[in-house]
Amino acid sequence: MRGQCYSRLGELCKTIGPRLSGSDAAENGIAWGVNMLNTYGFDSVYTQPVWVPRWERGDKESLWLHSTVFTKELKTGFPADYNCEAFTEQELKPASKYQLQACVLGGSIGTIGVMKGKIVLINSWSELDSLGKIGALKDKIAFYNRAFDESLLNTFAAYGACVGQRFSGASKAVAYGAKAVLVRSMTNRCDLHPHTGVMGYADTNVKIPAMAVASAVANMLESLVQKDPDLEVNLELNCRTLPDRLSSNVIAETKGSQFPSHYIAFGGHFDSWDEGEGAHDDGAGCMHAFEALRILKAVGYEPRHSLRCVWWINEENGLRGATEYARLANQNGEVHVAALESDRGGFVPRGFGVDSTLWQHVGQFKSLLEAYNIGALEKGGGGADIGPLKKANAQVGLVSFIPDSQRYFDVHHAETDVFENVNKRELELGAAAVAVMIWILDQKDYPEFAE
Amino acid sequence: MRGQCYSRLGELCKTIGPRLSGSDAAENGIAWGVNMLNTYGFDSVYTQPVWVPRWERGDKESLWLHSTVFTKELKTGFPADYNCEAFTEQELKPASKYQLQACVLGGSIGTIGVMKGKIVLINSWSELDSLGKIGALKDKIAFYNRAFDESLLNTFAAYGACVGQRFSGASKAVAYGAKAVLVRSMTNRCDLHPHTGVMGYADTNVKIPAMAVASAVANMLESLVQKDPDLEVNLELNCRTLPDRLSSNVIAETKGSQFPSHYIAFGGHFDSWDEGEGAHDDGAGCMHAFEALRILKAVGYEPRHSLRCVWWINEENGLRGATEYARLANQNGEVHVAALESDRGGFVPRGFGVDSTLWQHVGQFKSLLEAYNIGALEKGGGGADIGPLKKANAQVGLVSFIPDSQRYFDVHHAETDVFENVNKRELELGAAAVAVMIWILDQKDYPEFAE
Repeated sequence: MRGQCYSRLGELCKTIGPRLSGSDAAENGIAWGVNMLNTYGFDSVYTQPVWVPRWERGDKESLWLHSTVFTKELKTGFPADYNCEAFTEQELKPASKYQLQACVLGGSIGTIGVMKGKIVLINSWSELDSLGKIGALKDKIAFYNRAFDESLLNTFAAYGACVGQRFSGASKAVAYGAKAVLVRSMTNRCDLHPHTGVMGYADTNVKIPAMAVASAVANMLESLVQKDPDLEVNLELNCRTLPDRLSSNVIAETKGSQFPSHYIAFGGHFDSWDEGEGAHDDGAGCMHAFEALRILKAVGYEPRHSLRCVWWINEENGLRGATEYARLANQNGEVHVAALESDRGGFVPRGFGVDSTLWQHVGQFKSLLEAYNIGALEKGGGGADIGPLKKANAQVGLVSFIPDSQRYFDVHHAETDVFENVNKRELELGAAAVAVMIWILDQKDYPEFAE
Repeated sequence: MRGQCYSRLGELCKTIGPRLSGSDAAENGIAWGVNMLNTYGFDSVYTQPVWVPRWERGDKESLWLHSTVFTKELKTGFPADYNCEAFTEQELKPASKYQLQACVLGGSIGTIGVMKGKIVLINSWSELDSLGKIGALKDKIAFYNRAFDESLLNTFAAYGACVGQRFSGASKAVAYGAKAVLVRSMTNRCDLHPHTGVMGYADTNVKIPAMAVASAVANMLESLVQKDPDLEVNLELNCRTLPDRLSSNVIAETKGSQFPSHYIAFGGHFDSWDEGEGAHDDGAGCMHAFEALRILKAVGYEPRHSLRCVWWINEENGLRGATEYARLANQNGEVHVAALESDRGGFVPRGFGVDSTLWQHVGQFKSLLEAYNIGALEKGGGGADIGPLKKANAQVGLVSFIPDSQRYFDVHHAETDVFENVNKRELELGAAAVAVMIWILDQKDYPEFAE
């Protein structure tokens, strides 16, 4: 049988599509997944019920400029950063309702009708504080514009340095009287695709709407607001939070021959944002885990520990699936000796992040891994969905699958995270890398865990 | 100034497009390149005249099935290998002229009108010989169908194992009386894009037409010919070879401060096949070299040796540019101490192939290179365009730039080798890697070369 992960990811992306927690699509996708996994003859395939939050975008949101400014059309078409610098040079043309490429951030409240306001450019937390203290944000729209540091080779480091403005920007700005926030998209590219992602409110009574703007739009707004401090934008958001809904984690399992009650869990998250198709984030991780379990079975390998491919639900905006998974493992006495997470996309594999408890063991296989170009080992393994297992028992060894990171934030949480942007061979090599690592983890005895 | 290689590659691909040696487009591209390079203030920018062969595709070629067989439509659309296996399952539908995705191989003669013939499946040279010896190829169309070994992690190794059937298939088959050849496209993918490339005739009087068929079409033909050994195909090729034409290598140069008559040359080839836009092959290599020279200047680096960004002409079907470059270097007493070639696409950099004469020197910088994820050093450097320098003087140290190879043969010599399939950040990182390596090569003293 040929590799299955690419065609299965295609089915998931093209027949189910985006699958935000609590959506009908997520539930349809879970049913598809269980049916699909059942065709491969694993020892068992089942779901774990989990209540998940249900936030909805509603009707498509809008952000537009007021009519007193003029612009040329923003250039559209792919790839926009072919001549991105031009965006900041644009003059405004007459338009009574000039739409900008922007999207609501996950978890935001909606506006009541149209909100209009002046925008205040903010490049850092200290700038927020100094502007806030002199009252400059009062009744204004805070525009967080900190860009990725492109000199960081690891794009996740660039993301980590900026994502605070997306998650906490609203709660911090509201303390200074702001009435909404715009946040520059979390991406390396300069283009016209807004990138969504989760934001959160502090425990205050006041919540304000929050949007992401495409990076090229952010450049343009930066330029415009410097020329015209009275620049006004209009926004209309129709999102809302509904009551929680019952959803599921999905599990496919192969029983261990020597330590059947000791588990090695590996997987990704099944939910995705409602832009794109969740192809890289994290359809790829789910397919890596499924294919790894399939490969090990196909080659006739009999695992010593029980192996679990897990598709956790609700990583993007709640982590309810992972939390419930760890709670049930503890309640049911399912001893987890190790866990691996793949949540960095379906790109060409580079190596693994490895927990200190596993460092010595995995290190023995470094030359094997290097022979397959997957020998880049970094100290420290982990991930959102396997974190709760570690929290419950510090002895659990965690591993992060690390593919090349250069293209990830081109598509992350954006309408471009679609199947067409996944490369078959890169995805398959990732699945093979995960299979190899699960085999390595299965070779270890874990005497620290009582049988 | 921001990185320039991506936007310049965009201009090359979108305003010039494909630029086969001897074409008007190649000459327009050279003029564009000289103008472009002149805007960056290098010490000198100039061309080297070179006579190049001139082979033309002519009117679009055709390959079609005869009408007595039936098929469903081949599925089109991207990405085809989402459900590639389906292609081999197709039944044929009524069609008097059923077009197959195929293209002429570079250097082939044309047909005189339409050629019709039965096809004979050949999977290896030994199969060719055994079928040939019993007369099975007499007046038939040899169909070479050896596929890439996908288990080879280095896709260039898979290419190397198959490309002989493309280059020599016609000359070997004609010895057994074949009247044409079809060759499976050189690619990892199963899709509907034919991949061209150079073929050659032996010094015999008989030349026969040669075409590449898309890999999915090859799968289908394999299946069909096994069901129906009398399967006939029709082909019509309109290509021809014209007299040689005067073209040029393009050079941008920075004079060395300590060893001005000692040169480090680095570049790629400017010509491309006439499918696609030559974006990865080898627009990327040309842009790597240009950007590396620009970066070193932009940071104020004063090179010890003279640095030359070279865009060689006619790598794809003649190597005239590289041959003339080496001849002129020798004639003009331009002592080349080292040379680097980038001709593996604009993908994320991995490392370098390094000549034995440079191994020790470059090895001293391994930890620096590893810090930038470009520390994978392989013994043996070289490349088609820098080979003639080495042939002239075995002491010249050669370096190959090695990016990740997984996606290269998806697009190589096909209509998909377009700018949209180049990633900005991957291209820029490649250029930075080349700049670092040129800096490393410039640090070495080369006492073996007399000043």
